[in-house]
Amino acid sequence: MNIPANAASPSAARTLADPDTPFAVVDVHKSRRNIERLAARADRLGVALRPHVKTAKSLDVAGLLHDDTPCPVTVSTLAEAEAFADGGYTDITYAVGIDPHKLPRVLALLRRGVTLRILLDSAEQAEFVAEASRRAGLPIPTQIEIDCDGHRGGLKPDAPTLPEIGRILYDAGCLDGVLAHAGESYFAYTVEEQCLAAKNERDIAVAAAERLRAAGLPVATVSVGSTPTAHAAEDLTGVTELRAGNYVFFDLVMAGLGVCRIEDLALSVVVTVIGHRREYGWIITDGGWMAMSRDRGTAVQAQDQGYGLVTDLDGNLIPGLVMTGASQEHGTLTARDSAHLPDLPVGTRLRILPNHACATAAQHHGYHVIDGARTTNTAPAIQTIWERVTGW
Amino acid sequence: MNIPANAASPSAARTLADPDTPFAVVDVHKSRRNIERLAARADRLGVALRPHVKTAKSLDVAGLLHDDTPCPVTVSTLAEAEAFADGGYTDITYAVGIDPHKLPRVLALLRRGVTLRILLDSAEQAEFVAEASRRAGLPIPTQIEIDCDGHRGGLKPDAPTLPEIGRILYDAGCLDGVLAHAGESYFAYTVEEQCLAAKNERDIAVAAAERLRAAGLPVATVSVGSTPTAHAAEDLTGVTELRAGNYVFFDLVMAGLGVCRIEDLALSVVVTVIGHRREYGWIITDGGWMAMSRDRGTAVQAQDQGYGLVTDLDGNLIPGLVMTGASQEHGTLTARDSAHLPDLPVGTRLRILPNHACATAAQHHGYHVIDGARTTNTAPAIQTIWERVTGW
Repeated sequence: MNIPANAASPSAARTLADPDTPFAVVDVHKSRRNIERLAARADRLGVALRPHVKTAKSLDVAGLLHDDTPCPVTVSTLAEAEAFADGGYTDITYAVGIDPHKLPRVLALLRRGVTLRILLDSAEQAEFVAEASRRAGLPIPTQIEIDCDGHRGGLKPDAPTLPEIGRILYDAGCLDGVLAHAGESYFAYTVEEQCLAAKNERDIAVAAAERLRAAGLPVATVSVGSTPTAHAAEDLTGVTELRAGNYVFFDLVMAGLGVCRIEDLALSVVVTVIGHRREYGWIITDGGWMAMSRDRGTAVQAQDQGYGLVTDLDGNLIPGLVMTGASQEHGTLTARDSAHLPDLPVGTRLRILPNHACATAAQHHGYHVIDGARTTNTAPAIQTIWERVTGW
Repeated sequence: MNIPANAASPSAARTLADPDTPFAVVDVHKSRRNIERLAARADRLGVALRPHVKTAKSLDVAGLLHDDTPCPVTVSTLAEAEAFADGGYTDITYAVGIDPHKLPRVLALLRRGVTLRILLDSAEQAEFVAEASRRAGLPIPTQIEIDCDGHRGGLKPDAPTLPEIGRILYDAGCLDGVLAHAGESYFAYTVEEQCLAAKNERDIAVAAAERLRAAGLPVATVSVGSTPTAHAAEDLTGVTELRAGNYVFFDLVMAGLGVCRIEDLALSVVVTVIGHRREYGWIITDGGWMAMSRDRGTAVQAQDQGYGLVTDLDGNLIPGLVMTGASQEHGTLTARDSAHLPDLPVGTRLRILPNHACATAAQHHGYHVIDGARTTNTAPAIQTIWERVTGW
């Protein structure tokens, strides 16, 4: 919704100094820049993008992807699929292994004219998908999940059951292709490792596709991606589409991997100083884990960033200040190493840059949107508020 | 809302086998039992209870506390205070340090006739609260936060500024009392340590109150509490009210402390098996951190329970099965030590008992309510759906 400049309701807040804290902020300038960066990469690699919308879960953020024109997307829940279908999106991949109970909602979306692709990695799933497709007289486009790095689900490309699963799906008109996700690339700490992870993700997905083709089974889609590998891939020959989600916002985990810079982080949470424990070197804020999530993704990285780094309201990093503690509605800020603990009176507003954008965004109903490219003499102006899709 | 037995909408689901997963479940029988247990303790100790509603954030769950009659409550956000005021609650303590920006909403609640007490621990806060009270012609009842264990905010009872803060508040008609919270009792691993933490919490709160009284400042409220200390306190002489929140649901952290048994846990999340990686010993479900939260509270306990323990749909523990991994919409279950990995086909529904009820509940819009005291031949029947208060 757009906020009238002089509306009188609480939603009439006009700068980051106005709404009660904590609240989530998206800098649309940074988000657009992140989106353009990966779009340019995909163009150079000659591959289509299918962004994963699970990070922002917002039709408005997704509107930045393609000039407000619906584009192919990936979703993590059927609630997202339904919300994006309502928003005019017609080419959607639901990238979580299917269970039989969810098929009625899948079929309902297909009947609405949405090409909703689903995912599986076992013959038992292929059988019930084929059966449901036959009963409905409507083939459910299905991808076989391929495991490229032992991260989660999927079949190895040499799994004995791969051709059998492909055949069950093909015979029911359901076989669409293969999908791989290099989840372990979140632990690839150098550019070289990320490039290798991207090459491996491609090689394994293409090998699985070739194995199916060698068995006489047509493979239309060869889908790969994760934010680190999407930014590292050098050659995607044989791949038809690239997926990534986190990059729309980025976060400290991605900055720790070197996939982005800290100044690229588009999501933050505005908090207020509510107290001090000077004897312990603590500044206490009203942003705890309810506002930030319990995600401590940087704990395994070379630089543990606690629950997040701290900026002023304009987004300038406060050197050495880290959110190191969180209870439900309290955050604790401390100075790293020998950094000076700044004097920040009660009432001071700060922004916290999160470890994991997907998890932090999930703690909020929506985003207060600012445009970091517009400089002002006051706190950043709130352009609008964007809502999130929630639930399953 | 009550669900008509034969309604046709998706909300007509009648047992835990019906709604799409994941979703949160509250066993109202267990919750009532937990509530009765602490109420009986408080009666024996001769102290009033002021339950903290931040765990369930639900007027319906709060209705269990006192036969659907509004009782004194503690809240963690002004959104909770406003929702409970809408529900007829008139005696509310907002137990997070105040910042000046939130005072208009505090005053609005007071003007509605709600006795909303606020919290602070500095002279600068006392000054702006006194000033706002004078300007509004409406004294804001205020408690001084006392630190009993170095856990978070608050003043030590011998802090030089304590009488000064009391005086500023008293002169403006705002001084209500003192409040302490033994947050470190979450790390008190024996009954003896918990008893000591409870005694310390009482002693320190009473000492602070006595210091204020010695300075000629009347102290009406002496408020203490945390779920572990509320269940361990042996003598609360001088205390006027006891706070606790988590006990309405309990969780694996509390079970690990011995404050409750695992069979007392009233909150769980229903998930569905969506795949297997038998070569790794993994069962994969559709319940990841979005459904469970990232909270790993038992990681510091003697028995790390991963992201949660696993039961069947009736709530019977599956021995040795633990949710050890989580991505956004995927959970990984593994067998502990030499336990047998059960054969659970795709589509099998399970329940996950959470580490931290406050954090897991926060991932859901509401609760599907069952009554574990009613045995059936089918999956537990869903009695109703209860909504949560969200946001700030």
